[in-house]
Amino acid sequence: MGLRFEIVAEDRATGARAGLLHTPHGIVETPVFMPVGTAGTVKGMTQGQLEELGVQILLANTYHLYLRPGYETIRELGGLHRFMAWPRPILTDSGGFQVLSLKSLGRVTEDGVWFKSHLDGSSHFLSPERAIEVQLALGADIIMPLDECVAYPASREAVQRAVKLTGRWARRAKEDLSASQGTGGWGLGTRETPSVPNSRPPASETQLSAQSQITNHKSPITSPLPPAPTPSLFGIVQGGVDKDLRRQSVEAVLELEFEGYALGGLSVGEPKAEMYEVAEYTAQLLPRDRPRYLMGVGTPEDLVECVARGIDMFDCVLPTRNARNGSAFTSQGKVIIKNTKYAREESPLDPACECPVCRRYSRSYIRHLFVAGEMLGAILTTQHNLHFYVDRMRKIRQSLLFGAFAEFHSRARSQA
Amino acid sequence: MGLRFEIVAEDRATGARAGLLHTPHGIVETPVFMPVGTAGTVKGMTQGQLEELGVQILLANTYHLYLRPGYETIRELGGLHRFMAWPRPILTDSGGFQVLSLKSLGRVTEDGVWFKSHLDGSSHFLSPERAIEVQLALGADIIMPLDECVAYPASREAVQRAVKLTGRWARRAKEDLSASQGTGGWGLGTRETPSVPNSRPPASETQLSAQSQITNHKSPITSPLPPAPTPSLFGIVQGGVDKDLRRQSVEAVLELEFEGYALGGLSVGEPKAEMYEVAEYTAQLLPRDRPRYLMGVGTPEDLVECVARGIDMFDCVLPTRNARNGSAFTSQGKVIIKNTKYAREESPLDPACECPVCRRYSRSYIRHLFVAGEMLGAILTTQHNLHFYVDRMRKIRQSLLFGAFAEFHSRARSQA
Repeated sequence: MGLRFEIVAEDRATGARAGLLHTPHGIVETPVFMPVGTAGTVKGMTQGQLEELGVQILLANTYHLYLRPGYETIRELGGLHRFMAWPRPILTDSGGFQVLSLKSLGRVTEDGVWFKSHLDGSSHFLSPERAIEVQLALGADIIMPLDECVAYPASREAVQRAVKLTGRWARRAKEDLSASQGTGGWGLGTRETPSVPNSRPPASETQLSAQSQITNHKSPITSPLPPAPTPSLFGIVQGGVDKDLRRQSVEAVLELEFEGYALGGLSVGEPKAEMYEVAEYTAQLLPRDRPRYLMGVGTPEDLVECVARGIDMFDCVLPTRNARNGSAFTSQGKVIIKNTKYAREESPLDPACECPVCRRYSRSYIRHLFVAGEMLGAILTTQHNLHFYVDRMRKIRQSLLFGAFAEFHSRARSQA
Repeated sequence: MGLRFEIVAEDRATGARAGLLHTPHGIVETPVFMPVGTAGTVKGMTQGQLEELGVQILLANTYHLYLRPGYETIRELGGLHRFMAWPRPILTDSGGFQVLSLKSLGRVTEDGVWFKSHLDGSSHFLSPERAIEVQLALGADIIMPLDECVAYPASREAVQRAVKLTGRWARRAKEDLSASQGTGGWGLGTRETPSVPNSRPPASETQLSAQSQITNHKSPITSPLPPAPTPSLFGIVQGGVDKDLRRQSVEAVLELEFEGYALGGLSVGEPKAEMYEVAEYTAQLLPRDRPRYLMGVGTPEDLVECVARGIDMFDCVLPTRNARNGSAFTSQGKVIIKNTKYAREESPLDPACECPVCRRYSRSYIRHLFVAGEMLGAILTTQHNLHFYVDRMRKIRQSLLFGAFAEFHSRARSQA
């Protein structure tokens, strides 16, 4: 059990809580927003910029890293933290969501999912055990079991089938992780671990030689290799917008006891009100003393609304993807920066914002960068948007610590 | 006369010198390398990163800024420094090189150059006076007159024609600048200045209102608007690789007395040895007490070799453009980072480098970023390459200050 979750403040009226999530790579303050670093990089940001923004934990996509550069490569290089030079916590997803949503011709069987790479069309098979194996190789702090996420709308039968399959896969994932954990980290003891290609020495030796190589440099790349982490596995609740199925799914994962619980299958097309209702309903079925993670959500409003429904962790591509499309989140709503009306506007993206971008650059300049197709446009807007999200979470947490969440919540609602 | 050039150390044997270039936006230590910020941004770098790298002066391209966002826009927004939030010195070229080299159907007449925009095919006319007017609007510290640069190889007649035309255009540029300077900065007194569109107030008022607008923000974007700068005009020497024509061109510009002298028409295809020889021959014809700028040069070796030939200033797209193509300059030569052999290499781009990139990231990670098409690959490699150039110049300057340039020079030669 690598994860310790400590609740430091709670809002009686709503069940919103502020906590501390103790991970092998440090303590994460919750509620927390996790920027998405799909391929081991948050697009356009340096790791130093993320640290400066106060990003405490990243999400990385197993599917993408599995295909490129490959999980054996990352394992040999000492795991994802070391590979991408990010010393703070990382959560990896199972890869299942991408397999099923990237239209990679994912074909679900009892054993797992067959899919074709979006890069070269090659065929791959992802099973609950494989998903654990790959994530152990990546070495994240928090890992997710393979699940089946059904798009909205779907028949009750389809959702029920997914709930049951997700439950059976959760058990297999848990059992596989338990088996591999007895034999040390980095997934070396995992049943399915293939022999390391090219007759290279096993990872532990590679790590040692890499480390001594590093100390020969004037400038070491990263801090010394941390001990092989013990990842924490979360359980995923499916069930679409059907409360009965959500309850069934909760019961199935609770029986297995996970270190945290994730709400999957939301924000996949259902009306916002239903999403909030299902999140609230599901969260209150989960144990108080474990972190709750709402996968793939959401807008700045969603963050407040779902913290108010008992959620502790979020991830979403919105702040980063919108930024690359020239859409900035601001205290006055979205700013579509390419708009002609900003061509001569000297004010920053958000006059109320104190981020490094708003302290230095004007809307007119950032608009020019987008119009001219310059990378710096996406870089600055990403930095600003991530600051907006991180800052929003910081303010939510502060309001919880000082007993003012209700006020924050109602003010946020009136502004939305 | 806005520019004061002070020589602080000289190498007797070669004529290499270390100096201080006093500009309206601060003091530049020479010899200096100017990164190219084509459209008002050094591709992939934030202005803060450039400052941290120790970049002292940027080059911006008049041609690109003239077309987009337009020089009236930049003038209204308080000039290029303010627009791009770069408080340090800027040099702008005349636009002529792009007009003639971007194959924009540039047609040279006695009056100037007709060209078509590479963006929308629209027709434009650039005269010596227009080039000054546009650059005054941009508000750079150092500006360049329109010249005709001939590709290599060229007939003696073509080069001679260009030398003469460049001389006549230099006179017109100088006279135009003198006429406009009497009436205040920002090009408002320039003969050809069109009325400001949309009946907006003249720039001085715009600046004031912009300034008071800024102080109403919690976070001012930039430092207070500096006084309208008095730009320094350099003279450009053409003449290809023909020493006789170079001498004629030097004589023509010296007669007009400029605040600095630029060597144009080099690094356009001629053999390296000829480039060095012509640079040396030309530099020694120029007055000792004025800065000498070798336009568009060059490789790291070129920097040392041309400082040894009396050059003080350089600009080149090599470090930034190569970086975006995945080619890193290192103490061990070029590293083509996409090469498969780096896939599992934990050492930094350059083990001897102390830049923020080499202190943190491995070759394997940066290779992965390029292979995956991630922006961060270009960002990190650009940051490293610029550090390599800036650091190289810093070391050259140090060797001059401490009387060790000959040693530095011969060591650089033996490593090349």
